[in-house]
Amino acid sequence: MEAGKISLLLLLCVHVLSIGVFGVPETCPADIDSKCGDKDDWEGEFFPDIPKIKYEGPSSKNPLSFKWYNAEEVILGKKMKDWFRFSVAFWHTFRGTGGDPFGAPTKMWPWEDGTNSLAMAKRRNWWCFHDRDIAPDGKTLEEANANLDEVVALAKELQGTKIHPLWGTAQLFLHPRYMHGAATSSEVGVYAYAAAQVKKAMEVTHYLGGENYVFWGGREGYQTLLNTDMGRELDHLARFLEAAVAYKKKIGFNGTLLIEPKPQEPTKHQYDWDAATTASFLRKYGLVGEFKINIECNHATLSGHSCHHELETARINGLLGNVDANTGDPQIGWDTDQFLTDIGEATLVMLSVVRNGGIAPGGFNFDAKLRRESTDVEDLFIAHISGMDTLARGLRNVAKLIEDGSLDELVRKRYSSFDSEIGAQIKAGKADFEMLEKKAKEWGEPKVPSAKQELAEMIFQSVL
Amino acid sequence: MEAGKISLLLLLCVHVLSIGVFGVPETCPADIDSKCGDKDDWEGEFFPDIPKIKYEGPSSKNPLSFKWYNAEEVILGKKMKDWFRFSVAFWHTFRGTGGDPFGAPTKMWPWEDGTNSLAMAKRRNWWCFHDRDIAPDGKTLEEANANLDEVVALAKELQGTKIHPLWGTAQLFLHPRYMHGAATSSEVGVYAYAAAQVKKAMEVTHYLGGENYVFWGGREGYQTLLNTDMGRELDHLARFLEAAVAYKKKIGFNGTLLIEPKPQEPTKHQYDWDAATTASFLRKYGLVGEFKINIECNHATLSGHSCHHELETARINGLLGNVDANTGDPQIGWDTDQFLTDIGEATLVMLSVVRNGGIAPGGFNFDAKLRRESTDVEDLFIAHISGMDTLARGLRNVAKLIEDGSLDELVRKRYSSFDSEIGAQIKAGKADFEMLEKKAKEWGEPKVPSAKQELAEMIFQSVL
Amino acid sequence: MEAGKISLLLLLCVHVLSIGVFGVPETCPADIDSKCGDKDDWEGEFFPDIPKIKYEGPSSKNPLSFKWYNAEEVILGKKMKDWFRFSVAFWHTFRGTGGDPFGAPTKMWPWEDGTNSLAMAKRRNWWCFHDRDIAPDGKTLEEANANLDEVVALAKELQGTKIHPLWGTAQLFLHPRYMHGAATSSEVGVYAYAAAQVKKAMEVTHYLGGENYVFWGGREGYQTLLNTDMGRELDHLARFLEAAVAYKKKIGFNGTLLIEPKPQEPTKHQYDWDAATTASFLRKYGLVGEFKINIECNHATLSGHSCHHELETARINGLLGNVDANTGDPQIGWDTDQFLTDIGEATLVMLSVVRNGGIAPGGFNFDAKLRRESTDVEDLFIAHISGMDTLARGLRNVAKLIEDGSLDELVRKRYSSFDSEIGAQIKAGKADFEMLEKKAKEWGEPKVPSAKQELAEMIFQSVL
Amino acid sequence: MEAGKISLLLLLCVHVLSIGVFGVPETCPADIDSKCGDKDDWEGEFFPDIPKIKYEGPSSKNPLSFKWYNAEEVILGKKMKDWFRFSVAFWHTFRGTGGDPFGAPTKMWPWEDGTNSLAMAKRRNWWCFHDRDIAPDGKTLEEANANLDEVVALAKELQGTKIHPLWGTAQLFLHPRYMHGAATSSEVGVYAYAAAQVKKAMEVTHYLGGENYVFWGGREGYQTLLNTDMGRELDHLARFLEAAVAYKKKIGFNGTLLIEPKPQEPTKHQYDWDAATTASFLRKYGLVGEFKINIECNHATLSGHSCHHELETARINGLLGNVDANTGDPQIGWDTDQFLTDIGEATLVMLSVVRNGGIAPGGFNFDAKLRRESTDVEDLFIAHISGMDTLARGLRNVAKLIEDGSLDELVRKRYSSFDSEIGAQIKAGKADFEMLEKKAKEWGEPKVPSAKQELAEMIFQSVL
Repeated sequence: MEAGKISLLLLLCVHVLSIGVFGVPETCPADIDSKCGDKDDWEGEFFPDIPKIKYEGPSSKNPLSFKWYNAEEVILGKKMKDWFRFSVAFWHTFRGTGGDPFGAPTKMWPWEDGTNSLAMAKRRNWWCFHDRDIAPDGKTLEEANANLDEVVALAKELQGTKIHPLWGTAQLFLHPRYMHGAATSSEVGVYAYAAAQVKKAMEVTHYLGGENYVFWGGREGYQTLLNTDMGRELDHLARFLEAAVAYKKKIGFNGTLLIEPKPQEPTKHQYDWDAATTASFLRKYGLVGEFKINIECNHATLSGHSCHHELETARINGLLGNVDANTGDPQIGWDTDQFLTDIGEATLVMLSVVRNGGIAPGGFNFDAKLRRESTDVEDLFIAHISGMDTLARGLRNVAKLIEDGSLDELVRKRYSSFDSEIGAQIKAGKADFEMLEKKAKEWGEPKVPSAKQELAEMIFQSVL
Repeated sequence: MEAGKISLLLLLCVHVLSIGVFGVPETCPADIDSKCGDKDDWEGEFFPDIPKIKYEGPSSKNPLSFKWYNAEEVILGKKMKDWFRFSVAFWHTFRGTGGDPFGAPTKMWPWEDGTNSLAMAKRRNWWCFHDRDIAPDGKTLEEANANLDEVVALAKELQGTKIHPLWGTAQLFLHPRYMHGAATSSEVGVYAYAAAQVKKAMEVTHYLGGENYVFWGGREGYQTLLNTDMGRELDHLARFLEAAVAYKKKIGFNGTLLIEPKPQEPTKHQYDWDAATTASFLRKYGLVGEFKINIECNHATLSGHSCHHELETARINGLLGNVDANTGDPQIGWDTDQFLTDIGEATLVMLSVVRNGGIAPGGFNFDAKLRRESTDVEDLFIAHISGMDTLARGLRNVAKLIEDGSLDELVRKRYSSFDSEIGAQIKAGKADFEMLEKKAKEWGEPKVPSAKQELAEMIFQSVL
Repeated sequence: MEAGKISLLLLLCVHVLSIGVFGVPETCPADIDSKCGDKDDWEGEFFPDIPKIKYEGPSSKNPLSFKWYNAEEVILGKKMKDWFRFSVAFWHTFRGTGGDPFGAPTKMWPWEDGTNSLAMAKRRNWWCFHDRDIAPDGKTLEEANANLDEVVALAKELQGTKIHPLWGTAQLFLHPRYMHGAATSSEVGVYAYAAAQVKKAMEVTHYLGGENYVFWGGREGYQTLLNTDMGRELDHLARFLEAAVAYKKKIGFNGTLLIEPKPQEPTKHQYDWDAATTASFLRKYGLVGEFKINIECNHATLSGHSCHHELETARINGLLGNVDANTGDPQIGWDTDQFLTDIGEATLVMLSVVRNGGIAPGGFNFDAKLRRESTDVEDLFIAHISGMDTLARGLRNVAKLIEDGSLDELVRKRYSSFDSEIGAQIKAGKADFEMLEKKAKEWGEPKVPSAKQELAEMIFQSVL
Repeated sequence: MEAGKISLLLLLCVHVLSIGVFGVPETCPADIDSKCGDKDDWEGEFFPDIPKIKYEGPSSKNPLSFKWYNAEEVILGKKMKDWFRFSVAFWHTFRGTGGDPFGAPTKMWPWEDGTNSLAMAKRRNWWCFHDRDIAPDGKTLEEANANLDEVVALAKELQGTKIHPLWGTAQLFLHPRYMHGAATSSEVGVYAYAAAQVKKAMEVTHYLGGENYVFWGGREGYQTLLNTDMGRELDHLARFLEAAVAYKKKIGFNGTLLIEPKPQEPTKHQYDWDAATTASFLRKYGLVGEFKINIECNHATLSGHSCHHELETARINGLLGNVDANTGDPQIGWDTDQFLTDIGEATLVMLSVVRNGGIAPGGFNFDAKLRRESTDVEDLFIAHISGMDTLARGLRNVAKLIEDGSLDELVRKRYSSFDSEIGAQIKAGKADFEMLEKKAKEWGEPKVPSAKQELAEMIFQSVL
């Protein structure tokens, strides 16, 4: 069987895994389905033992079924698939090997042949991508670009008119040339090389109909301040992003530019530490209108915040653009990129998303990987089903919370003293200290009611 | 002996403890001296066993002497006292009791009588202060203000023309009325009360000749997002600070307004999480020109950063205004407010301060407390001597580092590829992606030299 | 109304709060009931607005009802009340003030008059207790003991034959004399004083029919190793506990002695860091048979472990004796003592307890406190209801998990290769390296199946 | 040049890097010397630009010189080289690639040819080693053993009579077969395979004259308790170690068996969490006399302890056997394995070692790696020099501390009340609660002196 054929099949399978992303083809039921597609000749090729994944409802005991995610069902006025726009992380799901700093690869996926050849590259194809994941690097920039062009042309053909990448990005952290950073490298040649790479990746994302472009600055940071000029590096980063904005406009790419904060790892300090730090940077350099933020839950907790906090911080700054839907382990100090299975956390995540009115053109990318010890093909499906179901359950819980109304009411009531004339003056910036002092004396000791935290927690728990 | 007399004596003692702050009186040698002052009648009153603290140099074995801090000695072109402008935290040093969440007070200081009466208040008098530390609260705002007026009038008289507070602040976290925050309380009456209190505290600071005014938002944050409207609270905080700026100008107070970041404790999340978060807030609400940042080392490490990182972040944003010179324990997750004794950390702190050209009109406040188990009066002196000596040693190390020059040279060389025409174009925002791509192709694979971290660490260590 | 009467009423109310502890009196329904008791004359005294708390099932929207806890309902062969044996922490629930390191008390409970007098002491009376919570300290040991005797005599009378303390303990951390520790103090006089205090507290616990006695070594640890002889201090601690065992036997007290690990706070390092450290200590000094461990969930997470890990560690060492049922905040580095509301965590807690066959004569103590900002009497009830319901829900989930059986089966199957002859030899200590090497060569490369973590998580989540 | 020759040269170079380990050959000066050796034909082969590393004293500005480490100098009655017995970690120093979870290798060492062939293996040869570092794995156990035999025979020949490994170990974590653990794998075949591998590694270590054998249980732990039978796994681990002890005795290997604790990474929980957990395990299974503990500083801090704490815990339990001399970053939650450059930390490390009377037959292994961005051969030397100098400086500081005597005196005095008759009775286990109560009443309120922490810190700092 030739490479192109396999690639087609895999692409079709995969787009089904990532259902909800950008208009699932009519011909393909909105389920995870290893047998979906326009053609039938791939059957048994990669997932012979995986049946079609259907919605069977919460009482189902079948691991290979959805219990909560029902793509076409309308929740809070929108189809579930439109709330989520799920996307598969090409690097974790299809190229994850199970390697870790102390361990060799453990996965023997049927679609990998152990090489990183161009022929191999054509066999894997999805869909949030790094440029260097979908096509092999080259000895020169020209060769790398040529490799990318060849794979991308095939991908374009395969995805047809109804499938697109959620986002694309350039991998600016793996190659040794980026060891000191890309846009913040101490070497001007690296800065230029990174610019060329991002230029190409933006072109490719645009060509494929991608709706977003992501910057994750894995090496944009420092290992020690002793050898680092942080101010100069941040200036360089700003110049780089300005140039990206200019180029985006030049080529007519209308997708959203996203920055993905992470506090550290691999660097000791990453410049996009968290949402607030990223917002500060964007404001300092006048880039606020041009970028949104991609919140990854595991990065949130590594920075000392809950995922909900980071989502809310992005949201109230008008910067919430996308979610990398994963989770970490509360006792672990590095990025574990686990699939989210905590129902409470998922409910809080969806609460922010619903308050934001959704996150389109962004979506939910599963930047999550199987545990190294999970080596069955079936595990890949279970993990994604579990992740999708957990978020779907979260959405359903939010719907219950909103319908119930008592939590919203508790919060509304809590601030009701500001729904007053004096509150309006404060809001309008007209309440000066003298007037406020006068009021304070007039009012005497203020009455301060209970915050009702335990009641809020009880209400919240009641919908889980 | 009447209260006023004792107060005078204490004031004199204390100002000597806080030597270097704002022009030590000529009559008082620039040493810690429990016997200094214009008058002699206080001798033996509080510190009968504490001799005059002199500079004796590094070889001295006398705990009650300076080994590194020599106030009048010129280092890097400035007297040591002018680099530091040391200040004593009135609350920790004179009113610290040794209580903790599991323990009762352990300290029996000779100047405390166990009450919080106004008579008692007049006996303690220094000198960064919270309004509610130096004078007791009242049943009404009017009564509290009257108490404050009485103590402040005495302080004004006592401090004469040469001593002033480094900064003043209002205590907006202890009283139950502030349990939901002050400027971010859910109750409008509390907002007004806080405004009245800050108004008064600013007036008092101005009256006493204070050179800065600090906002530490201990309760400006949340315990749970479930009951919190974070966006609304942050808007309120901004309105509050705008009103403070307006009032400052109205009364002709020219001191610097400082915000002191802390990530959490007592709240789960404090809005001024770290320097970057604070900068983001200031930028969002157009307050950058009006505020600077007071970096506390222990707060820095609690937020997941080194103290040096926070200082540098404030510095490169033009926001470094003051230092709370303390340290935490790397294995402890709460604010221990220990005196800094780590020579390496002190050297890094001073490196930022020297790069900033000093921090006046700010200074170094010892927001540090004796360990609960240290109960001798002598311990109070040892702790302050140790803290001052450690920072002085840090400053001397920085001088050696600068004189040696090899670390600066290492950094300069590291970025030298940007000292080129193309680097200049990048800096000027004129290097677009197309030009950079052309260069990248022309240059081929960039050469990426070693970061020389181990060498930088070796050089740094050589001056310790 | 005289003190004794009030005390009686409170006692009755409270024992109902702590339903499930040691045989609720027949006359009192197994609900939280502020109106329960043998007598009716206390009505409206403290909780006039709190109706009787009944089990109303999961669909109830009434905050003052149980949704999951149904005391008499049999789950997994035992009544819910017998699984839990809930107990109220006297110090948090009845004497919690809302104070924190930065804040004054916020609570104005109707049963407190603001004093710490003996008269006041008689009005509060439940029920896990520290000696110094239920009775005021005295100027001398004799006076403190006399105070305790007086309160305890009343308590004995009031509790009748059916109510007893879950456990008693001595407060060896609040008083300044214990600032360097109690059994590990550097002062021999403090060691003796602590011995006298524990002696008395054991007598009192025995007299009241307490079934356990707890040692929480809040100050048994160090602040810095620089001034500490850790080996000597640990030897002293062992001698102290040996003497406690001897005294227990002497007075015929058959209750379980419990050690409660905590990693730190208030000390930098607490000697009973976690379950494993405590087990190591008990083994080193030959105390294993004499003590069990009281796991507190918030302490577990502060030590870098999940609560489930600590429970399992205690369980497989035969040391699981009691649970302090609270939780912390995953982003906070100190003991927040929150009520447990996380359903997943509660399910894991109950999984350990069920595997242990229950924990009687231990139970579940709510070592949890209202948030400082929760100031309504109602909040106290909501918090306890929520905590009890969450654990009850956890127990119900465990029942579903066991009934379903697939998780147990997954684990059983995972280790099935050891259910072989060679596995039996390994277990019996008869498989030496030579034999194993022979087998390894004979078998060739072992087949290593997937760990199925995602499936295990999916199964676990399905019962939540 | 043929492989054997290169290997010889490298071996000689390396043993010099690891000077102090087990009798440096007389013919080789006790310095780092890339040109040392019996033969001269290797000159310029690998380190042509690295001159001989000599002791030049603290004032030297030459990065390639020792400022504090002077191998033959006697400090506290012992030669420096005998205190330290420095050893190089073969895996980090000679086979470290600079790869990290997000990055490809960055190092191009002259002795690597990019392959993992047996020919390549013979070119690298020192000297704490994992079996799979020094020789490539094989397709079968037999083939792997044959590879190992071949390399080991060469090493034996090369090292002559005066050089030996500090310790050997088996690599039981990299290969996918060990993904669930080795001795704690859920597969009996893996248990057997691991036994065979350890058997061989012990034989080889014995054959080469190694003085210790280390167990680091990188995968002996769990990723989730949901699929884990922790009790059963720990039993297996104990059986495995018992078999190791038996085999050690059988082959006449007298080296010390060491266990190296680490809290987590790669696993979520590692069974040898810290020194206390390891001690608990050894005690539970009766293995205390057979094992000692290898403390790694970076592992210590990851487990929430200072390195000094872990060393002291091992020491007072009679279990301190070896030190992995590295450090972590206090803000980073994973194992960074940095070279130790903190003078204070090094002084505390040496304080424990000196109190232990040294750690021979153990030593100091540099389980530290160059930063990924340090890519010059020179950096390798600078890092080792810096690490050795820092520890040497620590030792010199300890000598000053001991000579000064005031810190010891402070501690001695602190516990002096136990140097009494009653203290002796407590120590002897003869002080029962009744006697102690009598004493407590007799003595009245104990006097509790200051802990003098600030003074202790001042004294400590004075020797740095």
